[in-house]
Amino acid sequence: MAQNIYDNPDFFSGYSRLPRQVHGLAGAPEWPRLRAMFPDVAGKRAVDLGCGFGWVSRWLRESGADKVLGIDLSENMIARARETTADTEIDYRIADIETVELPEAAFDFAFSSLTFHYIRDFDRLARMIHRALTPGSHFVFSIEHPIFMAAAHPNWIEDEDGRKAWPVNRYSIEGERRTDWLAKGVVKYHRTIGTTLNALIRAGFAIEAVDEFAPTLEQIRENPALEEELERPMMLLVSSSR
Amino acid sequence: MAQNIYDNPDFFSGYSRLPRQVHGLAGAPEWPRLRAMFPDVAGKRAVDLGCGFGWVSRWLRESGADKVLGIDLSENMIARARETTADTEIDYRIADIETVELPEAAFDFAFSSLTFHYIRDFDRLARMIHRALTPGSHFVFSIEHPIFMAAAHPNWIEDEDGRKAWPVNRYSIEGERRTDWLAKGVVKYHRTIGTTLNALIRAGFAIEAVDEFAPTLEQIRENPALEEELERPMMLLVSSSR
Repeated sequence: MAQNIYDNPDFFSGYSRLPRQVHGLAGAPEWPRLRAMFPDVAGKRAVDLGCGFGWVSRWLRESGADKVLGIDLSENMIARARETTADTEIDYRIADIETVELPEAAFDFAFSSLTFHYIRDFDRLARMIHRALTPGSHFVFSIEHPIFMAAAHPNWIEDEDGRKAWPVNRYSIEGERRTDWLAKGVVKYHRTIGTTLNALIRAGFAIEAVDEFAPTLEQIRENPALEEELERPMMLLVSSSR
Repeated sequence: MAQNIYDNPDFFSGYSRLPRQVHGLAGAPEWPRLRAMFPDVAGKRAVDLGCGFGWVSRWLRESGADKVLGIDLSENMIARARETTADTEIDYRIADIETVELPEAAFDFAFSSLTFHYIRDFDRLARMIHRALTPGSHFVFSIEHPIFMAAAHPNWIEDEDGRKAWPVNRYSIEGERRTDWLAKGVVKYHRTIGTTLNALIRAGFAIEAVDEFAPTLEQIRENPALEEELERPMMLLVSSSR
């Protein structure tokens, strides 16, 4: 079972105050790039893996998706997601993505935002999602970038010019990473980009696009704190098709 | 025109003494992984872009390729490549990969080792190679890994535990990098992994596998200096099909 850090009260309280949870998709700088990877969702049955408060699940319905299944391990998240909508075509369920089995060929679009780095077995997950999608479907997701996750001590340092630099080590040593973020001992699983893409390809997906998110100059003007994202990518966005 | 650093006498002299030039493919630790990406080359017409001394061109012929075209910008390299073989089915030519145009549908396999990071316009190159290949062909190459190339100061540092760490910055700022390696001011072009893969996909290639080379434990036992390659990848290996 995946660690349920989101139901840790300290974590949940901190998480709920993040800009992307307060402001929704407008508070997620990668959202325009991620959305650009989506197919036309009108009439589609979509699954949102790690739906959290349901920001994307609701967006999918507002954009014409027929039905949306939102899945999350956290009771807190699902409770909040349910409170935010009266839409009966969004089904929010508590389930562990590490082990969940979706019905075969039941979806036309699969999506996940910043969730799969909590999952130990991505090979199983990719195969399961492939089975759950109809031919011609798209599967789009974001994860923490392996450059961001690899290091034993993921903290900015300075290079000899005083410019911010991100220390990378243990990149090829995959597996568990424990970090303190909103709570102590958050467990994540580091995989190289190659491992993630090869798992998709082996499962039967074609890679459509890979985006190592960087903010635009306009985004940096509006939010100067984003500038450091040019130095090293924090998020990896992948679009694939079945 | 690409910088012709290989015909700089100091560079060439240093380069000729690298283990992979003295020992050939046995001196290139990534070779077993790269070779595993190859299709059966028997009967195929192959092109080796940036062939250097011709190690792979010769291997391709020894493995049954029908004909091999080896291209390199460096007169020194091509002269040496020609000296090492009497095989009339290997054609070594001096040409700039930045601008070279290969004939249409003239090859069944395209290969390149550690060359494309010297090329400014990878989009053009990917489209040109796609045109030069027959349907069903494979295109396999290695480049310096963008994690290795990105930084303003690409030198090992130590993290707070005294473990080697590789500083990454300017990752999302693509373009020219000047480094001192065997000679001063070697010009390379940094691109993110996403940019490289998306250029292939846009040109019409399907991504088959992505390998961020890491040595095996056996390779590290034989050559302990390779151990640092586990901390950050130096090479990116890509297999694609047309």
